[in-house]
Amino acid sequence: MKTKLTIVKVGGVILDDNLLFEEFLKNFSLINENKIIVHGGGIIASNYMIRLGIIPKMVNGRRITDSKTLDIAVMTYAGLINKKIVSKLQKLNCNSIGLSGADGNLIKSKIRKVNKIDYGFVGDIEKINDEFLFSLLNSNLTPTICSLTHDKKGQLLNTNADTIASEIAIAMSKYYNVTLKYCFDKSGVLMDQNSNTSIKKNITKKEFKKLVDDKIIYEGMIPKLENCFHALENGVNKIYIGDLDILNTIKHCTKITL
Amino acid sequence: MKTKLTIVKVGGVILDDNLLFEEFLKNFSLINENKIIVHGGGIIASNYMIRLGIIPKMVNGRRITDSKTLDIAVMTYAGLINKKIVSKLQKLNCNSIGLSGADGNLIKSKIRKVNKIDYGFVGDIEKINDEFLFSLLNSNLTPTICSLTHDKKGQLLNTNADTIASEIAIAMSKYYNVTLKYCFDKSGVLMDQNSNTSIKKNITKKEFKKLVDDKIIYEGMIPKLENCFHALENGVNKIYIGDLDILNTIKHCTKITL
Repeated sequence: MKTKLTIVKVGGVILDDNLLFEEFLKNFSLINENKIIVHGGGIIASNYMIRLGIIPKMVNGRRITDSKTLDIAVMTYAGLINKKIVSKLQKLNCNSIGLSGADGNLIKSKIRKVNKIDYGFVGDIEKINDEFLFSLLNSNLTPTICSLTHDKKGQLLNTNADTIASEIAIAMSKYYNVTLKYCFDKSGVLMDQNSNTSIKKNITKKEFKKLVDDKIIYEGMIPKLENCFHALENGVNKIYIGDLDILNTIKHCTKITL
Repeated sequence: MKTKLTIVKVGGVILDDNLLFEEFLKNFSLINENKIIVHGGGIIASNYMIRLGIIPKMVNGRRITDSKTLDIAVMTYAGLINKKIVSKLQKLNCNSIGLSGADGNLIKSKIRKVNKIDYGFVGDIEKINDEFLFSLLNSNLTPTICSLTHDKKGQLLNTNADTIASEIAIAMSKYYNVTLKYCFDKSGVLMDQNSNTSIKKNITKKEFKKLVDDKIIYEGMIPKLENCFHALENGVNKIYIGDLDILNTIKHCTKITL
């Protein structure tokens, strides 16, 4: 039987709040099996952009990444946030190693083709270097991976962190029994955005389609859930969406199933 | 006989000049043995500090690092510069992995005690995790290490890149025949700062002392050379100081010997 691996995608709201961030890291460090963090950091990047006089541009919830925006993304994702996570995990005796997709050729991607919208330096994933990740985990290291990839031609590319998490989860299913946890500021997928208690405990693919048709699930939650079904269809064992508690218990959250 | 390892410290002037930077990476990628880059990036950090309204403070050529300055150092050293080096080396088929001292607990340091001058978040090295570095090199990875360390209590610390290079060189002498190369914008240690051809081909410890007394060697070159003698006295095989050419030839440069 395969051993377990938990992959946690942590959202921007948690990264940007000192108390939530510390609690997240404490809970994460208590996961007593192979584990990986995937993070972005859009809120912190946008704050630095504004301070540097660059106006953040978003289309359909996705960032338009020109070269100046990319520099800020690299500085905040791979620098500030990644190293803060790693150094704080070291304090908690979790031997983490911070990585972008360029390090060890971890995630090769291709710049997104211009099709109506020019997203700029945004990459679509082509290949995960699963052997490299497997060797790090085998050395008892805990990878902390930021949402940057590269094209192997010298160009870093901004890449959606949810997608990185699901693609890594799929690639690592070769070696492990993989659980993927999307950890954000809500305790699950809500049926009513104004009520934090309106969590749906379980969402199947069929239910998802109906919830989208009924406009109960919309905007950023749609690609997030599409990523989940894609991952489940490609070898990932379990997927949960919820708040900090899902790191150590799965009582209050949304389980995604096929 | 031990196999060879070349450790290259690259200076800020090269990192800040696109043409020199590309040439540096090309020359470095041609080194046909185990290799490591150590880099800082003070010029780029200072530029971002000024853009963000933070005034860089230096005492005796050393940066005073308050918490805002540390954030910029982390963003530029571990983020912008480190990932630019790694992604460009990947293009050159050099499988690099970018690291700060917190990653894999690579470099543990201690915050510098206040003694006349409060340097702020500056770390003095206590321990290099040589086994971790050895395992990366054994996996055919080329570490690119930025000038940040950590105290294992959750705090990142700014640390002089020359010192990191020499301490890593000493630690890795256990496994390898180590050559240390300090690569900057001059072709060696000059006897006359106004003449680029006044390179001294070889400097011994005895000559160094006299050159300091005679005020021919001064300022930042003093701690740099002190680092060199310390390294040679502790197992490092060869040390050269020079420009981009020293990566592939040692014809025009300064060799440091005991």
